[in-house]
Amino acid sequence: MATKFFSERNIEFLLHEVFDAESLTQHEYYQEHNRKMFDMVIKEASKLARDLLYPIFEEMDRNQPELVEGQIKVHPAVKTILHEFGRGGWIASRAAFEKDGEQLPHLVADICDFIFQAANYSAATYAGLTSGASHLIESFADTQLYDTYVPKMRAGKWQGTMALTEPEAGSSLTDIATLAKPGDQDYYLIKGQKIFISAGDHDCTDNIVHLMLAKIIGAPAGAKGISLFIVPKKRMAENGKLVDNDVVTSGIYHKLGYRGCPIAQLSLGDKNDCRGWLVGKPHNGLKYMFQMMNEARVGVGLGATAMATAAYYTALEYTKTRCQGRKISQKDPAQPQIPIIEHADVKRMLLFQRAVAEGSLSLILQCSKYVDLVKILPDEKKEKYYLLLELLTPIAKSYPSEMGIQAISQGLQCLGGSGYCDDYALEQYYRDCRIHPIHEGTTAIQGMDLLGRKVVMQNGKAIKLYAGELQKCIEAAKKCPELEKSANQLSEALTTLQKVTHHLFEIAQTKGPEYFLADATLYLEFFGIIAIAWQWLVQGITAQKALNGNEKNVDRIFYKGKLFTLKYFYGYELPKILGLAKRLMESDGLTVEMTTELF
Amino acid sequence: MATKFFSERNIEFLLHEVFDAESLTQHEYYQEHNRKMFDMVIKEASKLARDLLYPIFEEMDRNQPELVEGQIKVHPAVKTILHEFGRGGWIASRAAFEKDGEQLPHLVADICDFIFQAANYSAATYAGLTSGASHLIESFADTQLYDTYVPKMRAGKWQGTMALTEPEAGSSLTDIATLAKPGDQDYYLIKGQKIFISAGDHDCTDNIVHLMLAKIIGAPAGAKGISLFIVPKKRMAENGKLVDNDVVTSGIYHKLGYRGCPIAQLSLGDKNDCRGWLVGKPHNGLKYMFQMMNEARVGVGLGATAMATAAYYTALEYTKTRCQGRKISQKDPAQPQIPIIEHADVKRMLLFQRAVAEGSLSLILQCSKYVDLVKILPDEKKEKYYLLLELLTPIAKSYPSEMGIQAISQGLQCLGGSGYCDDYALEQYYRDCRIHPIHEGTTAIQGMDLLGRKVVMQNGKAIKLYAGELQKCIEAAKKCPELEKSANQLSEALTTLQKVTHHLFEIAQTKGPEYFLADATLYLEFFGIIAIAWQWLVQGITAQKALNGNEKNVDRIFYKGKLFTLKYFYGYELPKILGLAKRLMESDGLTVEMTTELF
Repeated sequence: MATKFFSERNIEFLLHEVFDAESLTQHEYYQEHNRKMFDMVIKEASKLARDLLYPIFEEMDRNQPELVEGQIKVHPAVKTILHEFGRGGWIASRAAFEKDGEQLPHLVADICDFIFQAANYSAATYAGLTSGASHLIESFADTQLYDTYVPKMRAGKWQGTMALTEPEAGSSLTDIATLAKPGDQDYYLIKGQKIFISAGDHDCTDNIVHLMLAKIIGAPAGAKGISLFIVPKKRMAENGKLVDNDVVTSGIYHKLGYRGCPIAQLSLGDKNDCRGWLVGKPHNGLKYMFQMMNEARVGVGLGATAMATAAYYTALEYTKTRCQGRKISQKDPAQPQIPIIEHADVKRMLLFQRAVAEGSLSLILQCSKYVDLVKILPDEKKEKYYLLLELLTPIAKSYPSEMGIQAISQGLQCLGGSGYCDDYALEQYYRDCRIHPIHEGTTAIQGMDLLGRKVVMQNGKAIKLYAGELQKCIEAAKKCPELEKSANQLSEALTTLQKVTHHLFEIAQTKGPEYFLADATLYLEFFGIIAIAWQWLVQGITAQKALNGNEKNVDRIFYKGKLFTLKYFYGYELPKILGLAKRLMESDGLTVEMTTELF
Repeated sequence: MATKFFSERNIEFLLHEVFDAESLTQHEYYQEHNRKMFDMVIKEASKLARDLLYPIFEEMDRNQPELVEGQIKVHPAVKTILHEFGRGGWIASRAAFEKDGEQLPHLVADICDFIFQAANYSAATYAGLTSGASHLIESFADTQLYDTYVPKMRAGKWQGTMALTEPEAGSSLTDIATLAKPGDQDYYLIKGQKIFISAGDHDCTDNIVHLMLAKIIGAPAGAKGISLFIVPKKRMAENGKLVDNDVVTSGIYHKLGYRGCPIAQLSLGDKNDCRGWLVGKPHNGLKYMFQMMNEARVGVGLGATAMATAAYYTALEYTKTRCQGRKISQKDPAQPQIPIIEHADVKRMLLFQRAVAEGSLSLILQCSKYVDLVKILPDEKKEKYYLLLELLTPIAKSYPSEMGIQAISQGLQCLGGSGYCDDYALEQYYRDCRIHPIHEGTTAIQGMDLLGRKVVMQNGKAIKLYAGELQKCIEAAKKCPELEKSANQLSEALTTLQKVTHHLFEIAQTKGPEYFLADATLYLEFFGIIAIAWQWLVQGITAQKALNGNEKNVDRIFYKGKLFTLKYFYGYELPKILGLAKRLMESDGLTVEMTTELF
């Protein structure tokens, strides 16, 4: 195991120097906090991650959960972890004081989650899901349901899940078939099957609380007939004891990675005794669920970023100590071999990993700040940030997920044959990270969401606001002579983005939605590269300014490293939009017109 | 398990229609063969693959080799497989009749290997290594060594290996430290450590024959002092019995994938009784070994291609049967869901896999034909094909290896959550394929080989010959109106290749080798995309001509499928050279100049 799995200095840089977390405390909602407290919270999170999560990162993978006599058994440390997370307030870090939360800005809470995920993604998922599920109940359920479930969930005693997928309804939630039959009590009788439920069952909490989509009998067809229910594994009997709620764990999946967290298959109501409690109004379930889903999507992006970060530090440590070969111009075999980090191609591979990891983290924290601004600003000012957040959510989910895989694969490559063996953690990261482009909406779904929904919403208002943000950054960068070249490159990229988007709007008009969305996944990739380029310039401005006035050597090294990574991104990654733009401008409908018999 | 792991029709197309295997039989060396025999051989290989290799593909992964009391135990089926491969002549398929071989053209033998590798890469490796090792002995060792080892190896009774890597000498073979001490007998005493030796020990053959690099005591420093030895696990005692040769299996690696084949760590001469027999002349070992290495590199490319092919067919079968969602324009949830292959984005993912797999196979068979031409043509005619083969070997190794990972990952993505679970083979392919960019020279090594050695050799003669081949193909394609656009695209790409190469030559002159080679890996990628584009146009010409005159529906569907995949490659893959060319023209030396403290 590497000694380091994230950079404290980079977190300080992003939190304070780039995103100025303390500025949030000027608003009433966050006024109880200050910079010192933020730093203490992050220090606590680091300690928890280092002491509790990181040491069992490999162990949880090697001893994967198993279904034994209807009960999934997981690594016993999960109990301690959830207990500590509950006790320390980590599951309720974003909740208001009045809801027994810590009322932390998302900016700070997301950094804590990042640290947990970098230490041990699987372990962090249990608390992450519980946090999202309890927030969903808090947002839309009545007080009684809140009182029954949320305090126990936030204390780490009960597990929360999101139970959406069914055998015939994965990407197509429209086709959900789980039924809810109303009765004369306050509950519904639930009947159906759910599959791929993360933390859907385990033996380290007293109960599992499923936030479940189902259709009330007689509901309208399709998405408009989906309702949200709380379906606990165990329900409270009249005597106050927990009794089985006819939720049966019918299977467990054996997965490529992400093995520390079980994924369950559930059978509901086999004995016609599975009770579910409606959250909010009937038929509004999908809308409610999208609150948790959107949080989970950014959470997946954050997890992918965290994993790429941890993998980067493992690779970095290896390349600094492993000696192999000599400088190209040094032919004398009597000279000692050099650490492989000194080879240009190894530096390129490390820069790629760093550029992806730190660029992604910057983008996600940008989104975190938008969440905070939406929370604290008056209505007339918050729309802008809400729209930017909506627009960037599919990018925040997909860029780290897709590029995290590439980055981790390059990390593995840095170790050569050792990277392929389980003596180092890279092979586990490589397996673990492959989940990200799949769960909480595949990359294709994110592409459709971006181009088919977010870019076109309110006549393209969000993308106009986004262009404004990039423009502001470009203008600021142009004031630093060292950044002028990058600023011009981003400016060109923005023009290309606008040109491609305009072209696609025309395709939508002339050829219809199938042609318009045929290459939505490529548009997502194209858009994502530019978004990360923007975030690198945002970081670059801060770093360049800090460098100009700074004499401290340790800081100078940090800022120079940032600026080299910025140059890497603009030199190696941003040019990838050229090929993507060429393809997107083509719109020949190749994949629409090809019939399936031709495969 | 999918019902299909390769396409017989595609093999027929490439072997006969594109590369005209039968034309080889006009030469004396191959005159005993004819098309019918080639087809029979391939049919036999398919049967063996289907009956013996494919059924245990998953089983060999799940029951990985273990080191038990100094002996590696592998899946017992390996014994049967090697026996059948020996009996059927598959290990000696390329050897001359007079060497008890089948004297098959490489074009045909490589297709058989492709089929074996598609069925079960790990299982195929045992025979593949033995074939390469026996060819190496045949080429450079004396008759006595040949007689002692080769017949047993080709009969599948003894395993062959290539034993190069050491703890301090992986990519840097210069630093080999295993020593060979001459004595007054015909053997040397060997002392050292070897690591990462594929099939370096197992219990399914009577002996393991290591083709091993070592330095004779007092040899010149560096690569010029490396010699090649045969070091068997067991040697023949005077009584004709096999006795231990002081080769100890000191470890086994637990790997991400490729688990059916053990990778061993060996300790040689702990008791000063490890005997090695010199192959050829002293200090010429690296040169000899490069024969096996080059064969192995193309073999790795072929294996990567085979794996990507098998993964493609698994994904294809799934997407044809899995129903999810509806056409974008179809909003009515009462309509039935459609097979996911009907979604444009799924077609794009499948086309990507097919384009990579079939494009790679075409390139490798092009190389196979060059090997055959070098073998059968008179000296004055063979140089051209020898140079083309030298130039294309790093591409044939690295393009399928790197892009195979991407293709398999897209295959996994086609299955969504199911792709992440071990109910389908995709997760195994995803693990298995990650070895390819590592073994037999990492991708970075291939890049240095291409740009630093092959492109510059003989004043760029190879790349000029290569440009001539592309030009010939472009001219031929321009005669088909349907292919004119693609021909022009390839023509532009060739111009870009020449421009970038010329620019890099200038950098070599002005800035020296470090700057010249800094982005060699990117040059390799750039070169590789153009090479595969060329092979798609080669296939396209054949397909278009065949389509023009063909009435048979089944053939029309096949050729149309080929032409759609060609269009995919030119529409989606070839444009990737734009970003790469932009980067390669930059040559700002970012990765040369960045100091390691900045990480």
